[in-house]
Amino acid sequence: MEVPKASDVLANELRERILSGEFDEGTALPPERELVVQTQMSRTTVREALRILEVQGLVRIKTGRAGGAFVQRPGKDSIASSVSLLIRGRQIRLSSLLETREAIEPYCARLAATQRTEEDLAALDAANEAIADENGTLAAFLQANVDWHVAVATASHNELLTGFMAALSRAIYAATENERFVDAEVRRVAVRAHQSITDAIRAQDPKAAARRMTRHVHGYADAVLAVDERTDITVSDDS
Amino acid sequence: MEVPKASDVLANELRERILSGEFDEGTALPPERELVVQTQMSRTTVREALRILEVQGLVRIKTGRAGGAFVQRPGKDSIASSVSLLIRGRQIRLSSLLETREAIEPYCARLAATQRTEEDLAALDAANEAIADENGTLAAFLQANVDWHVAVATASHNELLTGFMAALSRAIYAATENERFVDAEVRRVAVRAHQSITDAIRAQDPKAAARRMTRHVHGYADAVLAVDERTDITVSDDS
Repeated sequence: MEVPKASDVLANELRERILSGEFDEGTALPPERELVVQTQMSRTTVREALRILEVQGLVRIKTGRAGGAFVQRPGKDSIASSVSLLIRGRQIRLSSLLETREAIEPYCARLAATQRTEEDLAALDAANEAIADENGTLAAFLQANVDWHVAVATASHNELLTGFMAALSRAIYAATENERFVDAEVRRVAVRAHQSITDAIRAQDPKAAARRMTRHVHGYADAVLAVDERTDITVSDDS
Repeated sequence: MEVPKASDVLANELRERILSGEFDEGTALPPERELVVQTQMSRTTVREALRILEVQGLVRIKTGRAGGAFVQRPGKDSIASSVSLLIRGRQIRLSSLLETREAIEPYCARLAATQRTEEDLAALDAANEAIADENGTLAAFLQANVDWHVAVATASHNELLTGFMAALSRAIYAATENERFVDAEVRRVAVRAHQSITDAIRAQDPKAAARRMTRHVHGYADAVLAVDERTDITVSDDS
């Protein structure tokens, strides 16, 4: 029989209180010593509970005189982290990542065409300019590429899709950081595709945006997988 | 200046060793007292590091005589948890969940039509039977509905898409557990749609499977959102 751990019980209770909106973002939870008094739990248990919430991205713990556990809203980073863990822990293949992207991105482009703001368009343009820099390194190209794809998701104004795309992009970046995958031709094709998709998003043409994105991500997947049909991916960033 | 916490340093190191495959699934990490000796860290720090890995789903801690921290591969549950946290913490609207589903599910159905096994088909049929039970409660209908949708994702044999769908389904279940949303007509339409999508998957017809799924999830979204265009969702399950 498994008895629930005291720190889990406290973490669950504090998590509910945070998620129910009892604490505004940025406010501090009651200090450790107060939680010890309130809960009759040991200092170690209280500290462990706070650490659990920190790992889950619900509080940020600051040490020192003005320290404490400050409430934050869980963001897309926490999804990105657990997606990275899944990808690495299960050694999910690059082809599965690319498939997932083919599912999500055309829909993001479709939404972006109707939801985009001027600010979103500026972010897309900035990423496109960086991508088009022929003298840029592979790393600079890949980063600008990720920035553009995440900017499309952001322009969809759907936080969940944006979270999924941020997670995927990070993994795809790591998996394709390789000159064998991304040669000059792949780069040239990407630049043209991004420009034409951005045009459709600017013109508020959801069908064209989705169609062009479908073609782009499918073409990119083909180009990458042509190099090695059965490549296991390695995501080497932290997570 | 933020100094990294000792327990984070140890957790990071153990995480890398787990993800690199140094420990097989089910094997135990070195016992606490051994980690204390190896790392020269305090027992509290070592315990905290193990708890961090437990929260991230990388080990399962068993207490008692045959206890220890047993390695497990992070699964779709860890994605589901962090997606739930994001949804609740950011109060993501039901319409965003439904949009995300519209992005992912048609693609799952497409893949399922080419990847499905006999076992996958049996799972789809079983869920369909449960959905069609006219005397079933709303809870039974919703659970069978989730089972069918997750079975489609599973039949895609893409673990990442399956993880996303498991996370979404849980949230959508919670958001639509309401007679106002899911009336008898919605149920009847769902039964017919599921049957015809299952037929396409069985017949290995990816285009029909994707087209029918697009129509189904879009229709379901319309029906649900017609009730309340601006419903904030509440996911009340644990996470």
